[in-house]
Amino acid sequence: ARPKVGYFYTGKTAFSFVSESIRKIKVSEVKSVPIVVDEESSIYDSIVTLFLEDVSSIFVTSNGFLTGVVSRKDFLKNAIGGLDLNKTPIGVIMTRMPNIVVTKPEETILDAAMKIIDHEVDSIPVVEEVEIKDGKSEYRIIGKISKTTITRLFVELGKND
Amino acid sequence: ARPKVGYFYTGKTAFSFVSESIRKIKVSEVKSVPIVVDEESSIYDSIVTLFLEDVSSIFVTSNGFLTGVVSRKDFLKNAIGGLDLNKTPIGVIMTRMPNIVVTKPEETILDAAMKIIDHEVDSIPVVEEVEIKDGKSEYRIIGKISKTTITRLFVELGKND
Repeated sequence: ARPKVGYFYTGKTAFSFVSESIRKIKVSEVKSVPIVVDEESSIYDSIVTLFLEDVSSIFVTSNGFLTGVVSRKDFLKNAIGGLDLNKTPIGVIMTRMPNIVVTKPEETILDAAMKIIDHEVDSIPVVEEVEIKDGKSEYRIIGKISKTTITRLFVELGKND
Repeated sequence: ARPKVGYFYTGKTAFSFVSESIRKIKVSEVKSVPIVVDEESSIYDSIVTLFLEDVSSIFVTSNGFLTGVVSRKDFLKNAIGGLDLNKTPIGVIMTRMPNIVVTKPEETILDAAMKIIDHEVDSIPVVEEVEIKDGKSEYRIIGKISKTTITRLFVELGKND
């Protein structure tokens, strides 16, 4: 449902300022540190990492390049599903490329937030494209944008005098 | 870390507009639907509810009043901890009153977002206080504010022309 935010000002000016400000902020300025594990790591070890780092999603790499994402929800589903968490590598349960929504440092934070809402995920990796050979390219993970990033930014914007 | 958002405008006017707009929005205007289970429900049934409703936290009541909160993180911790999820009631693992951060309909969304960030939780219940007797009162749950609520609002504000 569309939040009712339209009636605080009669004109459009104030909200144009808001949207303009939000649109000028780049992903590179607010991204946070991504937590990454290798595709061969066990699910159990990855869950331990999730708790130690207190994040809601983990990014997965192979040879240093993005291959997957696993959310707390994915972990919970598999934890009650009877898999052997110690013996099963995280690669088995991750959402795999190319089904991963990504953002890039030069995109606006509004674009990143829209991706998070539209695709119903908690966080997306910030990537840079690296050409490997024969015109093929891979993604290197250089950050992340999550609902926490957005909420923190919202608070910063709101506190600003 | 404080995001670097300070240099887009030389004056303070634009950011004052942003913070003013954000501060005028009330919790009652943007709150979403809370998912609630009774304290006697099993952990397993509560996890099923979590997946069916696709939420990150569940609120727990006894006699219709707020007694606890359980997050996806709490569920995951207990799912790998060897508890019998079918036989253990959710009351055993929930964060219990009075250790629950709440918000009220008349608070601003900025206040609610600050509580979420400061207490490092994914969502907080929107409550109204009900006097029961002898001056004692309980909370009835009438909504929730989550990082998703804030991210969605951020997108609405940013898209506004």
